[in-house]
Amino acid sequence: MSTKVSDREAPRAEPDARDRRTLDKINALAMEALAAVRAGKNPALSIPVRALSNVSFDEVKRLLRLGDAKQSRQFFHYKQAKLFMQTFLIAERCKKLIEEGATTSIRDIYYDAKHGVAGTKENTFEEQSESDPIIEDLEVTIDALREELHLRAENRGAMVGPMSVVDTGDTIDLRRMGSGGWSVPSIVEDNRIRFVTHEAEFVLFVEKGAVWARLNEDRFWQRHKCMLVHGNGMAARGTRRLLRRMNEELKLPLYVLTDNDPWGFYIYSVIKQGSINLAYESMRMAVPRARFLGLSSFDAEAFGLSARVSMALKDEDRARIEQMVKYEWFREKRWQDELLKMKKSEKKYELEALSSRGIRFITEEYIPQKIREKRWLE
Amino acid sequence: MSTKVSDREAPRAEPDARDRRTLDKINALAMEALAAVRAGKNPALSIPVRALSNVSFDEVKRLLRLGDAKQSRQFFHYKQAKLFMQTFLIAERCKKLIEEGATTSIRDIYYDAKHGVAGTKENTFEEQSESDPIIEDLEVTIDALREELHLRAENRGAMVGPMSVVDTGDTIDLRRMGSGGWSVPSIVEDNRIRFVTHEAEFVLFVEKGAVWARLNEDRFWQRHKCMLVHGNGMAARGTRRLLRRMNEELKLPLYVLTDNDPWGFYIYSVIKQGSINLAYESMRMAVPRARFLGLSSFDAEAFGLSARVSMALKDEDRARIEQMVKYEWFREKRWQDELLKMKKSEKKYELEALSSRGIRFITEEYIPQKIREKRWLE
Repeated sequence: MSTKVSDREAPRAEPDARDRRTLDKINALAMEALAAVRAGKNPALSIPVRALSNVSFDEVKRLLRLGDAKQSRQFFHYKQAKLFMQTFLIAERCKKLIEEGATTSIRDIYYDAKHGVAGTKENTFEEQSESDPIIEDLEVTIDALREELHLRAENRGAMVGPMSVVDTGDTIDLRRMGSGGWSVPSIVEDNRIRFVTHEAEFVLFVEKGAVWARLNEDRFWQRHKCMLVHGNGMAARGTRRLLRRMNEELKLPLYVLTDNDPWGFYIYSVIKQGSINLAYESMRMAVPRARFLGLSSFDAEAFGLSARVSMALKDEDRARIEQMVKYEWFREKRWQDELLKMKKSEKKYELEALSSRGIRFITEEYIPQKIREKRWLE
Repeated sequence: MSTKVSDREAPRAEPDARDRRTLDKINALAMEALAAVRAGKNPALSIPVRALSNVSFDEVKRLLRLGDAKQSRQFFHYKQAKLFMQTFLIAERCKKLIEEGATTSIRDIYYDAKHGVAGTKENTFEEQSESDPIIEDLEVTIDALREELHLRAENRGAMVGPMSVVDTGDTIDLRRMGSGGWSVPSIVEDNRIRFVTHEAEFVLFVEKGAVWARLNEDRFWQRHKCMLVHGNGMAARGTRRLLRRMNEELKLPLYVLTDNDPWGFYIYSVIKQGSINLAYESMRMAVPRARFLGLSSFDAEAFGLSARVSMALKDEDRARIEQMVKYEWFREKRWQDELLKMKKSEKKYELEALSSRGIRFITEEYIPQKIREKRWLE
């Protein structure tokens, strides 16, 4: 039973409706500054504050949100003038990218926008660490993800499963991707990546490429009708956005499988409710209903893993647990139990520890049993 | 003009000819030990020494080679007994993998082989840092790459270009991989990955995923008929082996494009002649005729890059240059000039610095011009 989702044509290089919306936002920003100049006023940008003080956990939507606090960035101000100029420099570069139908990396745009300022010894930017936050400012100010500004992040991670996608004009059958898989691109907005047909019933995200390779070799995705995605560690932005789109548009439940350690829990929490640093993305990247399938701190006992295949917690693990028990999104009893169990046992487990029960134990026993018995955390 | 390279059938899970050769080698190792036991002798393994003292640069083949020095590993020896046992434990696990037609990661095999030793408090392995070198010992002893032992490394990097490959039964058209590309798997031996048809005239390896995305977006591979590969940094084993196979079997010249810094030069040198640590792989992974396309230390002047887009050398860069000028494979005058120029100028450049001349400068000017004018180093 194949579901036809979309067979619209491949995107053109010319700006489409979404691109035009972004262009309009950039233009509006410029027109506002121009109007101030014409009125003899000091042109200023009003930029949402991207600090912890302005981030909160939305209990209803179950994700991190940026609050309403804003800061002003003025042209005639000895500290803000350069930032003001930099913001428009980046905005101008993004406008050009969108108009040309091109994308580029945030490192490229730093080099592209770096030049001398006439009549001074100063450069527009000295380091990429100056242009990166300006990009984030621009994103929140005009409410456009950097992907909509045609800026790429890393492409990392891969996907296989019972689905065909159109990727910038090419139809790709993710059922026939061999052992390698489709490398998930950085920009996966719906004007570039379209879901065509699929028979998937859920999505399984695994932290590690090696575990993904195990599941792919065992054709787990075929037997259980699922999309199989890995992040080679923390999910990159493109991967997160794709997980979100499959959950939102195709209504596919998402299961997350990570190591049983604080970093694994963190990877899950970023996929689920976003990160504090980039809280403004959560509205379009978080998957609030993502299910944590494992490894749970209770799995070692439940699945007969010997203490021999555990690893001892390190100081940084203990410190991280202390932080995490206080996070609002880990306040539920079951999460508190997870964290405290890890802390008390002084042990953590890698996903590969399941191989001590045989290399296919994860494919044939562990995952099917946990899903069948609904033993996940939300 | 499409060249038919191979249309043999997809591999089965059952061991094929190559697998049987590897199994024979493992069996021979075991039979030898058994014969010693039966003859009342102390069973011993003769293992090539994997140390710098036993590595040399082969001037004729232009790659790093392991010498003939061997060490004995005896069963009745208070220091060697455990290593002896561990070697056979790993060999036994690999034998099982091959017989089952399965592959696994070196981390998995550590957990799989880790268990208590009856009657003692000892484990077969305490840390993965014990099993990894045992795997390397086994590789050199029976002369089989770990991929032939069915052991996977990371899968990292992606490829697109005018070629179809068969990957474990699936035919994949690398001309139609959208913006993502085919994620290069870890094991690319010819019983798993087959080149079917191609119209490529060369292979371009770029260090950075972001630069690869630029070239892919600009369809560089289509215009210039080349396979476009990136490593997301240092080329992973699977990527190196694939570069080698395309160079050796398809006779495609390989160009390498990295940052202009000591790490970039090192990435090139590992692709070209192998690494000191794993010199025994070079015979099957190195591409001795790989061409270093850039960034050359002379490119900033040649292509009008401002000092503004350079970065200052750090102490570790200087130390690395000092080491590299002494390497035999960098002894040629042109390489010495490269290294000394970098040292004297005190500057290094990222590939993205080319974007200061426009984001498509690399696609439209830099690479075509360097290839056309044969401005590469070998």
